[in-house]
Amino acid sequence: MKLYDFERAPNARRVRMFAAEKRIDLEMITVDLGAKEQMGDAYKAVNPRLQVPALLLDDGTLITESVAICRYLDETNPEPVLFGTGALGKANVEMWHRRMELEGMQPTADAVRNSIEFFANRALAGPTNFDQIPDLAERGLKRIDLFHGLLDERLADNRYVAGDDFSIADIAGLIAIDFGKVVKKRVDDETPNLKRWYDEVSARPSAKS
Amino acid sequence: MKLYDFERAPNARRVRMFAAEKRIDLEMITVDLGAKEQMGDAYKAVNPRLQVPALLLDDGTLITESVAICRYLDETNPEPVLFGTGALGKANVEMWHRRMELEGMQPTADAVRNSIEFFANRALAGPTNFDQIPDLAERGLKRIDLFHGLLDERLADNRYVAGDDFSIADIAGLIAIDFGKVVKKRVDDETPNLKRWYDEVSARPSAKS
Repeated sequence: MKLYDFERAPNARRVRMFAAEKRIDLEMITVDLGAKEQMGDAYKAVNPRLQVPALLLDDGTLITESVAICRYLDETNPEPVLFGTGALGKANVEMWHRRMELEGMQPTADAVRNSIEFFANRALAGPTNFDQIPDLAERGLKRIDLFHGLLDERLADNRYVAGDDFSIADIAGLIAIDFGKVVKKRVDDETPNLKRWYDEVSARPSAKS
Repeated sequence: MKLYDFERAPNARRVRMFAAEKRIDLEMITVDLGAKEQMGDAYKAVNPRLQVPALLLDDGTLITESVAICRYLDETNPEPVLFGTGALGKANVEMWHRRMELEGMQPTADAVRNSIEFFANRALAGPTNFDQIPDLAERGLKRIDLFHGLLDERLADNRYVAGDDFSIADIAGLIAIDFGKVVKKRVDDETPNLKRWYDEVSARPSAKS
C-alpha cells in the first residue's frame, strides 16, 4: 500500500495519525502541494480529483477521501478500536466525529482557504478554481472560537471527545485545532479542559506522524 | 425509539429513508422548523444543538447527527446492507458517501441557507445566528451544477453511486439533489445518466418517506 501524502495537509495527517495508532506502515509518496504538484498531469492521472491523501492498494485500487481511507485501514486492522464498540458506541463516535468535521474542520478550512495568499483562487481543493470569499473567512474565525468552546465544555467531564476512549473523533479534533494555527487560532488557558485534552492528545506518538 | 423529525428537512429525510429501507418503524415527533419550534425552550431541553433529526432511545439516550443515527440503525438492523460489504466495499461506500456530502449536500446547503428569506440571519443550523453570505450562495449554485456533472459521469457506468448496490451514498445523493429544488436546480435531460438514476431511486418506496 502506498499513501499519496503531503506533510502539512491536515487530511493527510489524519490518515498518518490513524495508521500510526493502528501500527500500520504505509509507504509514503510525497505530492508537493506547496509547489502545486497535485495540479500537474502526473498526479491527475493518479487522482482526477487532485486531492491528497489517496491510498493506492497493491492491486491498483485507489481509495480517496481521508475518512474512507481510515475506514479501510480499520476494517483490515481492527485493533486498537478507533470507531467505537457496539451499536451505541459506534453511533456515539460517528456523532462526535461528525461534530469535529462540521463544527471544527469545516470552519477552519473556510478560515484558512479564504484568507491566506497561497490559496488565492483556490478557496476549495479539487479540480475547479474558486475565488476566496472574505466574509466566509471571517465566519470561519468566529466558528473556530465556538468550536474551542464546544470542546472545552465537552471535555470538562470526558477524557476524550467521544467519552472514555480515544477514537477517530480525537484525531479529527486535533487536526482541526492544529490547522487553525495557520490563522493564529491556538488553544490557551481560557479553555482549560480543551488545553488538558490538547496537551494529552498532542503527546501521543501518533501525533508526530 | 422516537425520531424528532420535520418533513421538509433534508437531514431528517435521510434518516426516514434509511429507516424505510431497513423496514424499521420509528415513532415520529414533529418539530415544526417552519415555525422555528427548534429554537424554543422545549426542544432546547431535548437537543441543545437545536437540530433535527435526533433519535431518542427508550433508555433516554439521544443520538444526534443524521449519519450517526443511520449508523445506529444499521448496527442494530444489519439487513439490507447500506454501508457496503467487506473492507473495500465499506471504504468505497464511505468514499462516495463523503463525496455526496462534501460535493452535494454542503454546496446545496450553502446555496439555500445563504439566499432564501426564511434563513435570513440563520445561514447555519445550530445555536448561533449567522448572517447570509450572498457570495457563498452564488458559489453553492455553481457547485450544484458541478455536482450534477460529477454524478452524471459516475452514473454512466454504474447503476448506483457506489457501484452495483444501492447504499447510503444514493440516499445522500438523492436528498442533496432534491434539496436543490429550493434554489430551482433540477435534474434534466442534459445529464441523462443522472436522470436515469434519479428516476430509479426516486421511485423506491423509501423515497416517499
